[in-house]
Amino acid sequence: MIPGRFITLEGIEGAGKSTQARLVAQWLRSAGFTVHSTREPGGTALAERLRRVVLERGEEDILPVTETLLMFAARAQHVAHLIRPALQRGEWVVCDRFTDATRAYQGGGRGVDAALIDSLAGAVQAGVQPDCTLLLDLPAAIGLARAHARSGGSADRFEAETLAFFERVRESYLAIARGDPRRVRLIDASAAVQTVQARIEVVLGELVHEARASR
Amino acid sequence: MIPGRFITLEGIEGAGKSTQARLVAQWLRSAGFTVHSTREPGGTALAERLRRVVLERGEEDILPVTETLLMFAARAQHVAHLIRPALQRGEWVVCDRFTDATRAYQGGGRGVDAALIDSLAGAVQAGVQPDCTLLLDLPAAIGLARAHARSGGSADRFEAETLAFFERVRESYLAIARGDPRRVRLIDASAAVQTVQARIEVVLGELVHEARASR
Repeated sequence: MIPGRFITLEGIEGAGKSTQARLVAQWLRSAGFTVHSTREPGGTALAERLRRVVLERGEEDILPVTETLLMFAARAQHVAHLIRPALQRGEWVVCDRFTDATRAYQGGGRGVDAALIDSLAGAVQAGVQPDCTLLLDLPAAIGLARAHARSGGSADRFEAETLAFFERVRESYLAIARGDPRRVRLIDASAAVQTVQARIEVVLGELVHEARASR
Repeated sequence: MIPGRFITLEGIEGAGKSTQARLVAQWLRSAGFTVHSTREPGGTALAERLRRVVLERGEEDILPVTETLLMFAARAQHVAHLIRPALQRGEWVVCDRFTDATRAYQGGGRGVDAALIDSLAGAVQAGVQPDCTLLLDLPAAIGLARAHARSGGSADRFEAETLAFFERVRESYLAIARGDPRRVRLIDASAAVQTVQARIEVVLGELVHEARASR
């Protein structure tokens, strides 16, 4: 059996993650793999409920530490009920955001202590780590303009953040990529969708080759 | 100004916490203090929303670590938006459960790592600690019988737990009391409501005396 792989897509708002995540899953299915397409926060009923809590712009100010704990609470359910069982069955998981997003948004963007994030990642993931992370990178101003054009007047709590916030998030993502270049593949996401797709398919080709070789 | 005090009530299901919390708040108001009566998980709109997630018996199994993170997410909002501001204004806070409950239920009852709970308490409470904790202690079998009589067939996720679970929770509470006897006052809660109330009022009298002396 070819072992399953855990692929995550990361990037700021407007980087095209959701579109590319769909294309990645399609490509892998065409290649004959069983693929779970999922997202964070989300992926289980409870995690989707927490997603609504985190994304809605409600009347109560949500603290950065609260946001971090809710992200990891959702992740704990997602890892235990969907991601780990799928990988153990040898299936592939394609996930729109994972712990790198918490490091970039809550850590880099909002200043939550990196040591706290590390200890939560340890407790919640219990060894489950992405095999490959596609970091869709583009200037924050471009991403934000795309995101605003898409959401119109109904931006969620993150889309409503400032350019300076997204610049911090982007820098955090780039620092993660520099620190773990084998796992994190940097993709220039300012290009057209088809160009980005083609670059990602090169990475997927390598990943499949490596998975087949590891049988 | 007499400084405000943060009083928590703890104990297993059926110990009479909610009743005694109400009586404590009444007694303090009669003594002329401004008192906030609150509970955990809860105390803000978001925290009450998380309370429903944690207590409802839904279709999805909630992991112990998820439960712990949700408790601390709710607590972060509660401390920042209600407890700390009230104490800073010199007001009193009477809270039905706090971090000791997480140590007893999620730590003792469900086996969540004590070091994780410690680091979350540090991040979320940021120095806010109960001045006095009233631990209403009684044998788990008695508490559970009382709780079942009260809830009928509609037990929540905790009330539906086994006797062995509540025995572990009780033991954890007693260990907390042994480790911090100055803060945690052990109250025999197997007695009648009025007897328990009288014992608590002795403790409250001391607390008020000490608060007045510290002006």
